[in-house]
This record gives sequence, C-alpha cells and structure tokens, in this order.
Amino acid sequence: MKPLILVTNDDGVNAPGIAALVEMVRPLGRVIVVAPEEGNSGMSHAITIKVPLRLTKVKEEEGLVIYSCSGTPADCVKLAMSEVVKEKPALLVSGINHGSNSAVSIVYSGTMAAAMEGSLYGIPSVGFSLLDYSYDADFSAAVIHGRPIAARVLEEGLVRGGCLNVNFPVLPSDMIKGVKVCRMSAGSWREEFEKRIDPRGHEYFWLTGSYHNAEPASTDTDEWALTNGYISIVPINMDYTNYQEMEKMKNWELISNKNEATI
Amino acid sequence: MKPLILVTNDDGVNAPGIAALVEMVRPLGRVIVVAPEEGNSGMSHAITIKVPLRLTKVKEEEGLVIYSCSGTPADCVKLAMSEVVKEKPALLVSGINHGSNSAVSIVYSGTMAAAMEGSLYGIPSVGFSLLDYSYDADFSAAVIHGRPIAARVLEEGLVRGGCLNVNFPVLPSDMIKGVKVCRMSAGSWREEFEKRIDPRGHEYFWLTGSYHNAEPASTDTDEWALTNGYISIVPINMDYTNYQEMEKMKNWELISNKNEATI
Repeated sequence: MKPLILVTNDDGVNAPGIAALVEMVRPLGRVIVVAPEEGNSGMSHAITIKVPLRLTKVKEEEGLVIYSCSGTPADCVKLAMSEVVKEKPALLVSGINHGSNSAVSIVYSGTMAAAMEGSLYGIPSVGFSLLDYSYDADFSAAVIHGRPIAARVLEEGLVRGGCLNVNFPVLPSDMIKGVKVCRMSAGSWREEFEKRIDPRGHEYFWLTGSYHNAEPASTDTDEWALTNGYISIVPINMDYTNYQEMEKMKNWELISNKNEATI
Repeated sequence: MKPLILVTNDDGVNAPGIAALVEMVRPLGRVIVVAPEEGNSGMSHAITIKVPLRLTKVKEEEGLVIYSCSGTPADCVKLAMSEVVKEKPALLVSGINHGSNSAVSIVYSGTMAAAMEGSLYGIPSVGFSLLDYSYDADFSAAVIHGRPIAARVLEEGLVRGGCLNVNFPVLPSDMIKGVKVCRMSAGSWREEFEKRIDPRGHEYFWLTGSYHNAEPASTDTDEWALTNGYISIVPINMDYTNYQEMEKMKNWELISNKNEATI
C-alpha cells in the first residue's frame, strides 16, 4: 500500500496553493487533507482553546480525502492525528504558502507551525512556500521541484523533532538554479503601523512593515539562496535552547545559593 | 532617569498575573504596559492581519502607564514599539502567565511569543510563568524571586535575538530551592479531543491533552528543575536552524545539479 501523506496549509482548504501541493504529492501516496476552512495567515502556532472545533468532509475520491476544519493550522494537525488518520502518516506537507516563509517569517507562519506540529508527532514534515503573495500565483515550478524533495523525505525520513522549511523563488521552472540547504537568515520585520481615523473619530492601526535582512552578504542563508534564484531548504530544530548563552549564564544559579541560605 | 520597562502578557490586561509582574518590576524602572484587552492563551506568535488594531490608555500614574490593545501579545509588542514608546525599552517582561510555559509549551505560548518578539527588536526580554492555571493563583513567590532575575537582565543584558523563559514552581517563597539555568526539555502534548454532539445533532471537538516528558531522567532540563522545586531559566535562541541536520543534508543539493543539467 502506498504511504499515507497528511496535507494542510494556512491559506485555507480552498486556496490554489494547497491544490498545487496535492498535485505535487499525490503521485507519492494516499493523501488526506485537513486544512482550515478560512485563511489563517499570520496565525503562527496558535491553538483553539475557547471554542470547540468542527470537522467537515468536503471531498472523497480514490487516494484523496479532503476535510475542512474550523480551527488553526496547528489545530488541523492535532485533530487530524486524533480523529482522522487511522495510521501514522509517513509524511506531512504544509502549504504551498502564498508568500515567503523564509528567515524569521517562520515565527509568524501558520504553514510552518503546521509542519512543526507534525514533527512534534514524529512525522517527517515539510512546509512549502512560494515567494508570491498573490491569489493567482503560478505554482507550477514549485510542483515540479517540490516533488523530488517530498519524495526524498518520504524515503529517508528526518530526525525526530525536525522539519524542513522550503521556499521557492518566483521563477519559471527552468530558470531555478537548484536547491540550497541553508541556515535561517538573521533579520527582523520593521513595523510601520498605518494610523487611520474611523467614522466615529477614533484611531485604529493597520499592521504593515518590511523585512530587514541583518546579513545580506552571508551566502549560506535562505535569504541569499532565494535572492540568487535557488530553492532554499532550512532544516528546523524544535529545541529552542540557546546552549552558548546557557553556559555563560551558569553563574546566575548563585541566586539559588542565596535562596537556600535563607531557608 | 530610571530605565524604561515594557510589560505585556497573554492573559489580558486585567489578569492578576500582569498586576504581579508590574509589582515585580516597578521598583526597577519606569513601566509601560501594553497588553491584550482579553485573554490570548494559546495564541502563540499570531499577528493580526485581517482587522486593524485599537489601542486604549486605561491608566496613568507616576512611573506607570497602562494601555490595552485589541490584538495578540505579538501585536502588543509591535504596536508598543511603533506607537507608544519614545525610546527603546531597556527590558521587556511578559507574564506572569497563569500556567506553565516550560518545555515545548513555548511553541503555543502567547506570553513567550511576546518575549521572543521583544528580543527580535533587540530588547533583552523575559517571559515569566507560574505553574498554576487558576485565576486566583498566588504570585507572591514569583514576585520575590523574579525581581532579581529581571534586575540582572537589566544590568547585564542578553545577546541580541535571545530571551529567557522563566518558570516558577507552585511553592511558597521560602520552599523554592533556587534557580536552575536549563535546556528546554524534549517532549510533546498528547491530544485527546473530547467529541460532543450539539443540539442540532452535529459533532464538535474540544481540545484536551496532557504533556508527555520524553526524558524524565534528564537532570539538566526545565521539567526536571520545576519538578524538583527550582525556578527554571531557559535561554532561547531565535535561530531555529538545525545545524547538524543541515550538514547531513548537504548532498541534497545534488538535486540542483540535475536541474542545472536540464537548463
């Protein structure tokens, strides 16, 4: 029997990007989609606590079942694992996101949160994103070049607790220079809120901003790879400990001696 | 002039935990609070894109100004940095969270997302959490033992892009054994959705679950420290790259040669 592949995203079950992702992985296995009913961009790793979740089967055909879920991308993975799949998936793929999730954007990304959630279940997981925010983005190059990446993860697996952040530049398939395995570029979003006044005279703020690359000259980063026509793959570590800082901070434990002295 | 301290949380501007946090840091500087209007537990690093944000000044007195914001914890930090503070804060503190944010719970935590967002602005940032989910939790030991930690971060700073995840065990002040600088414990939440039927006969699911510690015998983790009566401090790294896996995957770039060969 072909391997089971769980598919989700953050742009919603009806987004063109997830249709492209199903097209990418369908030749590789049996596909189950559990994706949000609506767009969940910027939802990060949010989970739904205050309200219950709904799950709706929206399509079923040979080798493909599609469910929509009322929750976030992370909810979709949890609900799929608990209530939908009968066996552990051999692969989880998330996306294809409409827009970049390179560098620090991973922090805000629902697409990558779903992949990270999959990896917490021990499923080799990959988030795919295309550097084009538009609804009618052309995902054809991503389908072509993403399939061998997904196939290789299926074949080789990934260390437990890891997943991949894959981003595609906006280029025709034959103009893509290749694949670079990279580190996450250092940088941050610089916010500029747009202040407006509502009809009742009250202020409100729209989030805007632009990404600032803190190391444009580094050639081993995902930002560099994408700017230079490569597909970027960043392997993700779910251990967020800063070990260097941890060693430097060992003397902070002196506080404990003071406390113990007062006992 | 005393240093500027930015305060936020995810339980909302009216939560007892943030009042305790203000009490903790007020002796150390001028305090500006920008916190969510409502509870945002489990919101992770979500940002608000679809609707604009509102900002309301709810209190102003000597050395303390409090704003509520209609958005998420990450929104609060971004809006505070863009629209509220006139100088870069010397410290950001988030919490005190009602409930643990140890181990992998950091992934789902709005409290820690706010601290991580602060660190992306280059502000030394600390998230504080107490292992008691109840509304009327006793934060007095956290106030006593958290203050020297906050003071030390103010004094020494933290490497850019880093922040601290501080958790307090549920113990009286004089029963706390001390402070341990730890690594993030490996483990995951095991979900068990509770399925119910609504009055119209349709299924819905409530998220429940319990934390599974993958390494209960390891004595250098935050889970161990908390179980054994210590305050845990985990320094957080905002670079999520898995460098070990990155080296192992270098041969994946062979795909690129194949692509180049077809050009």
